[in-house]
Amino acid sequence: MSAKQPIRYPEQPGRIMAGEIAEQPAVLARLLGEGAAAIRETARRVAARRPRFALLTARGTSDNAALYAKYLLEIRRGMPCGLTSMSTTTAYGARPDLTDVLVIAVSQSGGSPDLVASTEAARAGGAVTVAVTNNPSSPLAAVAEFHIDILAGAEKALPATKTYTAELLALYLFTEGLAGGDGAAAEVLPELARRILDRAAEVRTLAGRYRFAERMVLTSRGYGYPTAKEAALKLMETSYIPALSYSGADLLHGPLAMVDNVSPVIAIVPEGRGGEALRPVLDRLRDRGADLVVIGSGEQVETASAGFALPTAGVAEEVQPVLEILPLQMLAREVTLARGQDPDAPRALAKVTETR
Amino acid sequence: MSAKQPIRYPEQPGRIMAGEIAEQPAVLARLLGEGAAAIRETARRVAARRPRFALLTARGTSDNAALYAKYLLEIRRGMPCGLTSMSTTTAYGARPDLTDVLVIAVSQSGGSPDLVASTEAARAGGAVTVAVTNNPSSPLAAVAEFHIDILAGAEKALPATKTYTAELLALYLFTEGLAGGDGAAAEVLPELARRILDRAAEVRTLAGRYRFAERMVLTSRGYGYPTAKEAALKLMETSYIPALSYSGADLLHGPLAMVDNVSPVIAIVPEGRGGEALRPVLDRLRDRGADLVVIGSGEQVETASAGFALPTAGVAEEVQPVLEILPLQMLAREVTLARGQDPDAPRALAKVTETR
Repeated sequence: MSAKQPIRYPEQPGRIMAGEIAEQPAVLARLLGEGAAAIRETARRVAARRPRFALLTARGTSDNAALYAKYLLEIRRGMPCGLTSMSTTTAYGARPDLTDVLVIAVSQSGGSPDLVASTEAARAGGAVTVAVTNNPSSPLAAVAEFHIDILAGAEKALPATKTYTAELLALYLFTEGLAGGDGAAAEVLPELARRILDRAAEVRTLAGRYRFAERMVLTSRGYGYPTAKEAALKLMETSYIPALSYSGADLLHGPLAMVDNVSPVIAIVPEGRGGEALRPVLDRLRDRGADLVVIGSGEQVETASAGFALPTAGVAEEVQPVLEILPLQMLAREVTLARGQDPDAPRALAKVTETR
Repeated sequence: MSAKQPIRYPEQPGRIMAGEIAEQPAVLARLLGEGAAAIRETARRVAARRPRFALLTARGTSDNAALYAKYLLEIRRGMPCGLTSMSTTTAYGARPDLTDVLVIAVSQSGGSPDLVASTEAARAGGAVTVAVTNNPSSPLAAVAEFHIDILAGAEKALPATKTYTAELLALYLFTEGLAGGDGAAAEVLPELARRILDRAAEVRTLAGRYRFAERMVLTSRGYGYPTAKEAALKLMETSYIPALSYSGADLLHGPLAMVDNVSPVIAIVPEGRGGEALRPVLDRLRDRGADLVVIGSGEQVETASAGFALPTAGVAEEVQPVLEILPLQMLAREVTLARGQDPDAPRALAKVTETR
């Protein structure tokens, strides 16, 4: 296999996931080109309703995209925000007064019954409801007042990849649009994503160190934290390695006891304030002699055990998560292959999970 | 050592943690007797301000207590609610408009600088601020408009135990007090806690199965979910076993791939709607042949691999978390001792963690 076409394995395990990972630059470009205007218009109509508080509802990979949106809404829109505990509605029948509340439900399939029920209940409770899905004819799109289509095309691999980055970008364009912004900082993403995906050989080298790992810890802060959570989920659902994720601050409040020379740590270090806030945590990890791999800031990669420097100099911190996850998706796939498993067919996973 | 005095190990590892675990019935009784009236009065004054949304701010063990309060506020008070991402304020300088927002900061020590800064910023942003701590002369108590003292007495072991259950009870009394309730459902807790703590021999038998475990998964739903998270944290920070926690619904969206006959599962099954909502997850785990230990509902313990039935028949589901965590605190301590480590002195932990 040549280094120039590193992620095509026709007829091989992981082929479907590799194909969808590789599609991401095109998916991002399509969303920016064909989707952005509709998203801005939806944002304009939602903003006109003057929501004061936001709730985000999602599960699995989409829940990590929702967490990203929480940072955007709090930092860039100054809007207090929460993640929904769905069982309060579906199991306990809570019916809160949601006047002035914006409820955003995020789901690749738009098919999970609890998400549909919870969004219906939110709308009945007075919320402005927005569904973000990859399927405009899904039940979730139907029950929400507004729908945002992430235009990612059918996703066939069980581990979600292109729908995650498409959800991130759609949520970025939407939250910028709430204040009349055009999300111009995202224009660079398709080209930068392409450059990152060309570096599969680097990722394969990193994967070697996790082939026999019994556990992993992922950490970040701020905008990078959703990336740490999504990377942990991706690693777990494909390779079955228990991968724990913590914000850098939470890591110091207990789980640090678990980090030593047998618990490798992957830190996602954004260029910007999140990366700066993570610095004391990185120092502490280095002091403990942890095996520390850095994804992100080139400067931090230099002083780590190993890493993958992202081409994010000059890129707005709030759009970096769309890029940060890419080497980690590739890593999850490569580690899984190295362990002799098939990333396209994790045990026990169904594409649409019907939780109630 | 006789079975009758099972959790006293003078001069032995884990002695301090054992002592504080054993104090819990007295701590709960003290809070109900000496603390409840002041908490009700604080709740009355907060309710008079008519907050419409709530944000909870905490880290580590206290963050799990905060999550419990989120369920109480959403289900019992119908108040939309979120958990704060502190870095949005401390690293990114977000200053949201918090008019009509109730901000509750929970911290054993009341000393963490980021919690203090974030609470100060919330108060300046118009929020009604309440600090819940074990130290009325702490900086956090000083910056918040209201303070609730959990009256747990000095906590010396690094893993928090009695301050967790005291935080839960204080938050229960407070959220009931917001609607003029007296929290009478909590009156049974000290006596039931005493009965649970008398069953150390049962816990020691359970601990045997985890002595060589390389990973653990904890799950629950609804009110039991904070217990799953706190039990995972306790197990990790004492025994260093990677312990992952998921709501039952989230477990089906990915991490289930990791559960098989080498990943033992502990399910916390409340008596009530949370337990009912967890049933399909338990069925799925049994179908996969998972080693399933149930803490809670006697009926579910019967069909599990093993378990610890709680005396919760007839106890309001919303106060059961105060009891559910007790056998899991004992389990964390016993597993740690079985692995030849000292639960009183986990590596790398400081009692007051200074994150910024």
